Amino acid sequence: MTKILVVYASTYGNTKAMAEEVVKGVKSVPSTEVKLTKAEEATAEDFTSCDGMLVGSPVHMGSPDWRVKKMIDDVCSGLWMKDKLVGKVGGVFVTGSGFGSAGGGCEVTLLALLNNFAELGLVIIPLPKNTPGYNVGGLQWGPYARSAGVNMEQTGVASDSLKAAFHHGANVARFAQLIQGKELFAKGTK
Amino acid sequence: MTKILVVYASTYGNTKAMAEEVVKGVKSVPSTEVKLTKAEEATAEDFTSCDGMLVGSPVHMGSPDWRVKKMIDDVCSGLWMKDKLVGKVGGVFVTGSGFGSAGGGCEVTLLALLNNFAELGLVIIPLPKNTPGYNVGGLQWGPYARSAGVNMEQTGVASDSLKAAFHHGANVARFAQLIQGKELFAKGTK
Amino acid sequence: MTKILVVYASTYGNTKAMAEEVVKGVKSVPSTEVKLTKAEEATAEDFTSCDGMLVGSPVHMGSPDWRVKKMIDDVCSGLWMKDKLVGKVGGVFVTGSGFGSAGGGCEVTLLALLNNFAELGLVIIPLPKNTPGYNVGGLQWGPYARSAGVNMEQTGVASDSLKAAFHHGANVARFAQLIQGKELFAKGTK
Amino acid sequence: MTKILVVYASTYGNTKAMAEEVVKGVKSVPSTEVKLTKAEEATAEDFTSCDGMLVGSPVHMGSPDWRVKKMIDDVCSGLWMKDKLVGKVGGVFVTGSGFGSAGGGCEVTLLALLNNFAELGLVIIPLPKNTPGYNVGGLQWGPYARSAGVNMEQTGVASDSLKAAFHHGANVARFAQLIQGKELFAKGTK
Repeated sequence: MTKILVVYASTYGNTKAMAEEVVKGVKSVPSTEVKLTKAEEATAEDFTSCDGMLVGSPVHMGSPDWRVKKMIDDVCSGLWMKDKLVGKVGGVFVTGSGFGSAGGGCEVTLLALLNNFAELGLVIIPLPKNTPGYNVGGLQWGPYARSAGVNMEQTGVASDSLKAAFHHGANVARFAQLIQGKELFAKGTK
Repeated sequence: MTKILVVYASTYGNTKAMAEEVVKGVKSVPSTEVKLTKAEEATAEDFTSCDGMLVGSPVHMGSPDWRVKKMIDDVCSGLWMKDKLVGKVGGVFVTGSGFGSAGGGCEVTLLALLNNFAELGLVIIPLPKNTPGYNVGGLQWGPYARSAGVNMEQTGVASDSLKAAFHHGANVARFAQLIQGKELFAKGTK
Repeated sequence: MTKILVVYASTYGNTKAMAEEVVKGVKSVPSTEVKLTKAEEATAEDFTSCDGMLVGSPVHMGSPDWRVKKMIDDVCSGLWMKDKLVGKVGGVFVTGSGFGSAGGGCEVTLLALLNNFAELGLVIIPLPKNTPGYNVGGLQWGPYARSAGVNMEQTGVASDSLKAAFHHGANVARFAQLIQGKELFAKGTK
Repeated sequence: MTKILVVYASTYGNTKAMAEEVVKGVKSVPSTEVKLTKAEEATAEDFTSCDGMLVGSPVHMGSPDWRVKKMIDDVCSGLWMKDKLVGKVGGVFVTGSGFGSAGGGCEVTLLALLNNFAELGLVIIPLPKNTPGYNVGGLQWGPYARSAGVNMEQTGVASDSLKAAFHHGANVARFAQLIQGKELFAKGTK
C-alpha cells in the first residue's frame, strides 16, 4: 500500500476544492491510501509515514498562506534536521483570487512551496503540458486555479483546474508507488 | 533631459509591440528622450548613457529569450564589474504565447530579468495593482501580454497589456527623472 | 522628516542584530526617524505612516519565517487591497543558520520578501556590489548574514554582514527621503 | 542500459570540472552509459535518446550562461512543443566566480535551469542535505561550486563541491534507471 498525504490551507473553500480533487486522483491509482488534512492539523507522523505528499495553498500577496509556512517551520524543520523525508515524492498546487489575469503571483507561490520540498530532499513531480486540463489550469510547477475573474469577482474554481488537480494527484501517487522504499539518494559522510 | 533606454527581443512582433508602447509612455513624460533598440544591437554606451532602462523579452520555456541573456552576459557583465550602472532605474516586461492561461512562466521570466538588474544595482520599479490595464495585463513585477489563447491560437497582444506597458514606461521615466544624477547608494571600502 | 519602519522576526537574536544595524544606518541619514518593531507587533498604521520600510527574516527551510508571512497576510493584505502602500520604498535582509556554505536558501528568501513588496507597489532598493561589506555579507537583493559555519556550529553574525546591513538601511532612507510624498506612479482607470 | 546526458557551458574550466565529476558519478552506477557534451553542440537526438539529464552552467549576472539558454530555446523548445521529454529525469549544477560569499546568484541560476526542466515535464532530483559534500558544495536544488574567494581571486573548485557533483550524477542515474520506460504521467485529452 502506498500512502499519500494531501495538506492544504483554505479560507473560502477554493483550495479545499482543489485538494479534494487531488485526493480523488490519488484514489484512482490502485493500492494507494490517502490522508487529507489541514495545514494547521498536520503532524510529524503524517509526514514521516507517507510515501508522497501534495501541499496546496492560496496565493496571498504572491506567496503561500502563513498557515502553510507555520506548518513547514514548526513540523517539517525538525524532520529536515534529521533527514527524515529524503527520497519521498512531492507535488504542489495553488489557487488565487488575486488581481490580474496572469495569475497574480501563482508561479512564485508554487516555487516557494517546492523550495521547501527541495530542502526536505523530496523528488519533485512537475505538471507536464500534455496533462488534461493544463491549457486552463496548468503551470509547469503544478495545477493552478483562479477563484476570481479580472475584476476580482468570485468565480469558483474552473473544471479544467480541477481536472489538472486530479491528474497531478494521480501522477504523484504513481511515482510514489514506484519509488517507495527504495534508497536511491547517496548519503553518509564519505 | 532624462534618457531612457528600451531594449527588447522579438520574433513574431508581440514584444516589439509592447516595447513601442513602453516608448510612447516614456515620451508622455516631459523632458525625456528615449532610445529603442533590439537586444542584439544594444551597446555598452547605450547602457552607461541612460538614466533608466526597460528590458522586454518573450517567455521561452519559462525564461528570457537567449538573445537578451547574451546581451546581459556580453555587454552588461563588464559594466557590472566596474559598477557602472549602479543607481540607475529599471523596469521589465514580457510576452508569452505559451500554453496555459496562467501565463506559462511569465512571472519567473520577469524575475529573471530583474535579478540581472539587481546584480547591476538598479532601483527596481514594480507595477502597482492600480495601474490602468493591470487587471488583464499586469503582474506585480511588470506588464505581461499573452500572444496566444488557451489553445495556443495566435491572438496578438491585448489592449489592456499595451495600456499597462505604456504606464510602466512612464513610471520608469518619472522615477529616472527624479533620481538622475543623485548618488544615493553608499559605496567605497569603509 | 522621513519615517522608516524596520520590521523583523528573530529567534536566536541574529536577525535582531542585523535589524539594529539597519536602524543605525537609517539614523545616519539626517532628518530621518525610525521605528523598530517585531513582525508580530507591526500594525497597519506602522506601514501606512512610513515613507520606506525594511523587513528582515531568518531563513527557515528556504523561505521567510512564518511570523513575517502572517504579518504580510494579516496586516498588509488589506493595505494592498486599497493600494495604500504604493510608491513607498522597500528593502530586505535575511540571516541563516542553515547547512551549506552557499547560504541554504537565502537568495530565495530575499526574493520571497521582495515579491510581497512588489505586490504592494513598493520601489525596490537592491544592494549594489560596491557596498561596503558586500563581499562577505552581500547578495544582489540585500544583506545576508550566516549565523552558523559549515558544520552548523553557531558563529554569530559577521561584522561585514552588519556593515552591509548598516548601508542598506542608509540607502533605503536616502531613497525614501527623495521619493517621499511624490506621486510618480500612474493610477486610475484610464 | 540507462542513458544519461550531461550538458554544460564553461569558459574557464570550472563548470567543465564539475561536469566531469558528474559523469564519474553516473558511471559509478552499474548499467549506465553517459554522454558529455557542450551546450553549443547538444542535439535534439541527445535529449530524446537519454533517460535522464544533468545540465550545468556558470552563474553570470545571477542567471545561466546565454549558451545554455540558446540550447534550451533552439533545441529543447521544439521537443517541448511535441512533449518529447516528458517523464525523463533531470538535475542541475552551477559554478560561480561572482562576488559575495553567499554565492552571488547561484540559487536563482539553479532555479532558472529547473524551471526550464519543469516546462519540459522532467522529474526533478534535488540535492538532499545528507549528501556527502553538501555542507560546502550543496544547495537544495543541486551542487554549487565557487571558483573565486571573497575578493574575487580565482580559487578553482573545492573538493567538497566535486564530491556533491559526483553524488548528484549518481542520484540522477539511479532515479533514471528506475523510472526509465515507465509512463507514469497522465496524458491525453480527457
